[in-house]
Amino acid sequence: MITVNARGTFSPEGPFKLTTIERRDLEPHDVLIEIKYAGICHSDIHTARGEWGPVNYPLVPGHEIAGIVTQVGSEVTKYAVGDRVGVGCMVDSCRECDKCREGEEQYCLNGNTGTYAATDRYGQYTQGGYSTHIVVTEDFVVRIPDGIELDAAAPLLCAGITTYSPLRHWGIVPGKKVAVVGLGGLGHMAVKFAHAMGAEVAVLSQTLKKKEDGLRLGADQYYATSDPETFKKLAGSFDLIVNTVSAKIDISAYLSLLAVDGTLVNVGAPPEPLPVHVFSLIPHRRSFAGSAIGGIRETQEMLDFCAEHHITPEIEVISANQIDEAWERVLASDVRYRFVIDISTMGNE
Amino acid sequence: MITVNARGTFSPEGPFKLTTIERRDLEPHDVLIEIKYAGICHSDIHTARGEWGPVNYPLVPGHEIAGIVTQVGSEVTKYAVGDRVGVGCMVDSCRECDKCREGEEQYCLNGNTGTYAATDRYGQYTQGGYSTHIVVTEDFVVRIPDGIELDAAAPLLCAGITTYSPLRHWGIVPGKKVAVVGLGGLGHMAVKFAHAMGAEVAVLSQTLKKKEDGLRLGADQYYATSDPETFKKLAGSFDLIVNTVSAKIDISAYLSLLAVDGTLVNVGAPPEPLPVHVFSLIPHRRSFAGSAIGGIRETQEMLDFCAEHHITPEIEVISANQIDEAWERVLASDVRYRFVIDISTMGNE
Repeated sequence: MITVNARGTFSPEGPFKLTTIERRDLEPHDVLIEIKYAGICHSDIHTARGEWGPVNYPLVPGHEIAGIVTQVGSEVTKYAVGDRVGVGCMVDSCRECDKCREGEEQYCLNGNTGTYAATDRYGQYTQGGYSTHIVVTEDFVVRIPDGIELDAAAPLLCAGITTYSPLRHWGIVPGKKVAVVGLGGLGHMAVKFAHAMGAEVAVLSQTLKKKEDGLRLGADQYYATSDPETFKKLAGSFDLIVNTVSAKIDISAYLSLLAVDGTLVNVGAPPEPLPVHVFSLIPHRRSFAGSAIGGIRETQEMLDFCAEHHITPEIEVISANQIDEAWERVLASDVRYRFVIDISTMGNE
Repeated sequence: MITVNARGTFSPEGPFKLTTIERRDLEPHDVLIEIKYAGICHSDIHTARGEWGPVNYPLVPGHEIAGIVTQVGSEVTKYAVGDRVGVGCMVDSCRECDKCREGEEQYCLNGNTGTYAATDRYGQYTQGGYSTHIVVTEDFVVRIPDGIELDAAAPLLCAGITTYSPLRHWGIVPGKKVAVVGLGGLGHMAVKFAHAMGAEVAVLSQTLKKKEDGLRLGADQYYATSDPETFKKLAGSFDLIVNTVSAKIDISAYLSLLAVDGTLVNVGAPPEPLPVHVFSLIPHRRSFAGSAIGGIRETQEMLDFCAEHHITPEIEVISANQIDEAWERVLASDVRYRFVIDISTMGNE
């Protein structure tokens, strides 16, 4: 076992404390990654607070991981010491089912292994990226292109792929009309991707507070959903709506903004059920869907797309001793647009 | 104007009375159809009782119409006197929008004209098939193939196309797994179509009461949804679920029966919203969709498919003076599987 420093929470209420966790000794196909940066995702908070089910403590969250390979197992072929790499929301899957063979490990029929708060094939409870090192099988590691700084790369591993994948899956190409609900960590990436894919992009946000930002990030239009006129004006407009909001919203009202054969895809996961009026679906053959991250191959494709199109998230880098404060600001939507922990500050008081 | 006999309801409560209504004089592209049979659809009841919004009285429902052409307008090219024809849920649309040009008049962006309870382009309030004759533009008339009796043809114009269209749209081919929720007028057609398309078909019904029927109609399996084991056993099974039930069901439980990338499509239209748990969508990229009837071209394709595959609905033919009684039996789910009015009995006491 390899003992490494980490920041963990010891109860649903926190706070974070400096601690140590164990990483497994390298298996033949494992790589050891020295983590440089870890993004803070809203699901870190949901999970660590037990809102999505019970978890073990101490818990070390973090599934937006960017770092450098410092050691490789005896049979590793894909990576070498010194490589710039990333790890996202999963660190393993069965690799045998149809979905794994299709490269969609996120939908592994036997359940993939979460980067934290899961039990891996070795029986070990997984711990995430708020730590100095992680051991991951090379098949679940992606390469960070040279054009992308490691701090900016981190949020791509969850916020990036979570929004890139549905845009690809639902065929966004030039001429398509896309709306993004919520301009946060996920939403701002959805805007950048949809814009780079050639779509006409609208942001639907509660207020016009971030309008200037939204237009700068690539949106063509920006609407306040607090204004009832928005729903009248935009009825039947969009081919795809990406809903990044994990609070309960009036989903039937948003469905009415879809064109015939349009899809509203939720990537945000509100804990309460959303009431769907079937009359908002039937007369226009609309769909209400969900999408989870993306496969490893698609995650690599997304990173390469980012390098090619010069896309990076807007980030605010913090020290490891600021995690509690950052979480509070995430909950208050007070972040533009993603916190990234500088892991070199792990030992700071 | 042409004055014709009809059975209409004069208030939300009914009952039906023999009355007369006016059909327009034939425009150059109109055909006059002597109606032989009219199916009874659950939506006739919803509409006539004002449950889907206010309507004018007297109201003559009926959008499953089969008959014979008895007169044609001066410029009609598609039909001749004596032709066996059908009319479904719509009698016109704008014919100019993208959807109309694509042959999907059911999704006309300017709104199609319902066969009854709508106002047509001549400003006349439309009245449906519980009557002896109807005047319809030839573009909204379909041909009933010789192999299909007129009484059995009638329900194909709504129950048939409403279930055929989503099976085609969501790509049902041999090897796909389809579940049909509810074995009524729509459900029994969905089973026949899905079976004929080569799918493996399961019926999900409240009880096993109609199991023998279901298997005879083409289902491979039949499950009681009142048994909680059904939901455990079938989790993640189906590529497509066609929900024909227009009552409020636990839609999230049914969504959990879908495979990755599966779709649950509602063709039944419950008036209350259905609570959808987003966690039943996201981890398997599932969709909850709606579908409305089908276009005219697809309706003709469906009729030809029925002739080719010897598919007809199971019907119970009634006299015009039995409509009230039949409606009560529809509401009590006491029909196997569609009532069809013999219009030759229109004048009966």
